Amino acid sequence: MTESNLRVLLRARPEGRVEPGHFEIREESPPSPRPGEALLRNRYLSLDPYMRGRMSAAKSYSAPVEIGAVMEGQCVAQVVEDPTGRFQPGDWVLGGQGWQRFSAVPAGNLRKLEPGLAPVTTALGVLGMPGTTAWVGVTEIAPPRPGETFVVSAASGAVGGVAGQIAMRMGARVVGIAGGAEKCAFVRDELGFPECVDHRAPDFAERLAAACPGGIDSYFENVGGAVQKAVFPLLNDFARVAFCGMVAEYNDPSPAPGPNLMQVVRKRLKLQGFIVRDHPRAFEVWPRTGAAWLREGSLRYREDVVRGLEKAPEAFIGLLAGKNFGKLVIEVT
Amino acid sequence: MTESNLRVLLRARPEGRVEPGHFEIREESPPSPRPGEALLRNRYLSLDPYMRGRMSAAKSYSAPVEIGAVMEGQCVAQVVEDPTGRFQPGDWVLGGQGWQRFSAVPAGNLRKLEPGLAPVTTALGVLGMPGTTAWVGVTEIAPPRPGETFVVSAASGAVGGVAGQIAMRMGARVVGIAGGAEKCAFVRDELGFPECVDHRAPDFAERLAAACPGGIDSYFENVGGAVQKAVFPLLNDFARVAFCGMVAEYNDPSPAPGPNLMQVVRKRLKLQGFIVRDHPRAFEVWPRTGAAWLREGSLRYREDVVRGLEKAPEAFIGLLAGKNFGKLVIEVT
Repeated sequence: MTESNLRVLLRARPEGRVEPGHFEIREESPPSPRPGEALLRNRYLSLDPYMRGRMSAAKSYSAPVEIGAVMEGQCVAQVVEDPTGRFQPGDWVLGGQGWQRFSAVPAGNLRKLEPGLAPVTTALGVLGMPGTTAWVGVTEIAPPRPGETFVVSAASGAVGGVAGQIAMRMGARVVGIAGGAEKCAFVRDELGFPECVDHRAPDFAERLAAACPGGIDSYFENVGGAVQKAVFPLLNDFARVAFCGMVAEYNDPSPAPGPNLMQVVRKRLKLQGFIVRDHPRAFEVWPRTGAAWLREGSLRYREDVVRGLEKAPEAFIGLLAGKNFGKLVIEVT
Repeated sequence: MTESNLRVLLRARPEGRVEPGHFEIREESPPSPRPGEALLRNRYLSLDPYMRGRMSAAKSYSAPVEIGAVMEGQCVAQVVEDPTGRFQPGDWVLGGQGWQRFSAVPAGNLRKLEPGLAPVTTALGVLGMPGTTAWVGVTEIAPPRPGETFVVSAASGAVGGVAGQIAMRMGARVVGIAGGAEKCAFVRDELGFPECVDHRAPDFAERLAAACPGGIDSYFENVGGAVQKAVFPLLNDFARVAFCGMVAEYNDPSPAPGPNLMQVVRKRLKLQGFIVRDHPRAFEVWPRTGAAWLREGSLRYREDVVRGLEKAPEAFIGLLAGKNFGKLVIEVT
């Protein structure tokens, strides 16, 4: 093996905005598998907004990445060697190997992928954690009833795009929110949402209200900030809000106050946060359901593939600013 | 009949704080029942925080009281005459007669009370709308599991006192929040809460944290404002909040912002508003359940009875400032 092990480590914790200097890129020798471990060559790394939380020491639902440790993340990899005999060299697997080219990990923690069934990268996006997140949020946390208005922010993203498509299948009238004309056109023309509103428009709040003449019954929250401010006054009585994330505020060291909650009483709102890993059964249900929809051509998705692990910090910084277009994946060259 | 019909009308809509001048007290002739109506002599009028909302024209879950109309409210009354034959003179009934001494109302809208089963005023408080509100909030909206910490604000009030007692029966560790040492002593000594924290203490937030060393799993919100600010950081992962009311903010013409909602994601909180009348079945279940507990002596309550309908405006203004002590009832002399 002549390739080095390129690795992206956390060098320093950001206080606000993430900068390239918070990361350190190192070349090391590939690891040797210990008993029970397989050696993997990672091929695709998933970049997701939740990783911003792992960079901070603030109390959250997961322990932070330690300073000097490799950044966490899910990868699609190929097995180099597996002394446990569970996998053959060349097998495709999914696991949490992090931002690096090679990994030696317990073979029992890996899930085998069938490249013939769906492109392997879908295991990181539409059929993976983001798609499963969408499934949980729409079907369990803020389910729309037929004919109701369902709104999702970051609608061109890995989670939002799937969320809207699931809600349409449930009979809702779906309105997306995305940043820029190109993303909005994609959401309408490719994903098939009847409406998508550009949150960068100066009259965004008015446009959103016009797109939701009957108000909003169910909202899938991915971004927070100004988008949340525009959505809240439009919520109908008994509206449900699935709080999946608030990416627009992840870089904010002193988060702005939220809406006055008197409307929660008046409108009998239900605001509920969720994290997909609390819903393990969904990881059984969604990948199978989504794969069937993919095969029949009724589930659409878009990937934003960036070549080169060394580009991961810049691509991640762009993700937090909404610069990606579709599920962001690093091709680990 | 020599008594006049004393009535309290809405004279003007308050923009902020409610003042006596927003009401008008008039003496008129008692009404005559039209076909289908019974003539009632109201004996007890319930005063409740929700009435603040009815004084404003702002969109809410109910239509506002019109300027010049009698203030809305529930009364326990005695039948003077009932040409429909449904009731006998002297029968005790419950209905929405409003802030007045006499009313002619459709006899079919009245519920007959059995004075032998429980004091008639309990139909306005512990066994009535406030008690039923507590029942819905605790059992349906933010149910605590055995051993969990349940916190309720306005714990000496008509709703809060019942909410805490129901939560204790469900096996929760119950912590009350009330204003002043006297109310806190009542909540502990009379209602049997293991803890009650005085929100007027300068170190209220620290005291609340000390009273909830394991955090808060379920919160019954009646007041909002500074109390809400102190509660939110203590909420545990998967905590539930029943939003019943935010009386501390009802007089505020420009409500303050609420908490940043990122913690809703991180902690997977569920914040849910409710209004008791959306839960009609609870009006079948709670009065019967509560009456049984009253008879066995295991349900405690306190009434704050003010004599004289002309005192209703002042008493209501005091209610919004937390000056009542227990369920506020006007004895209509």
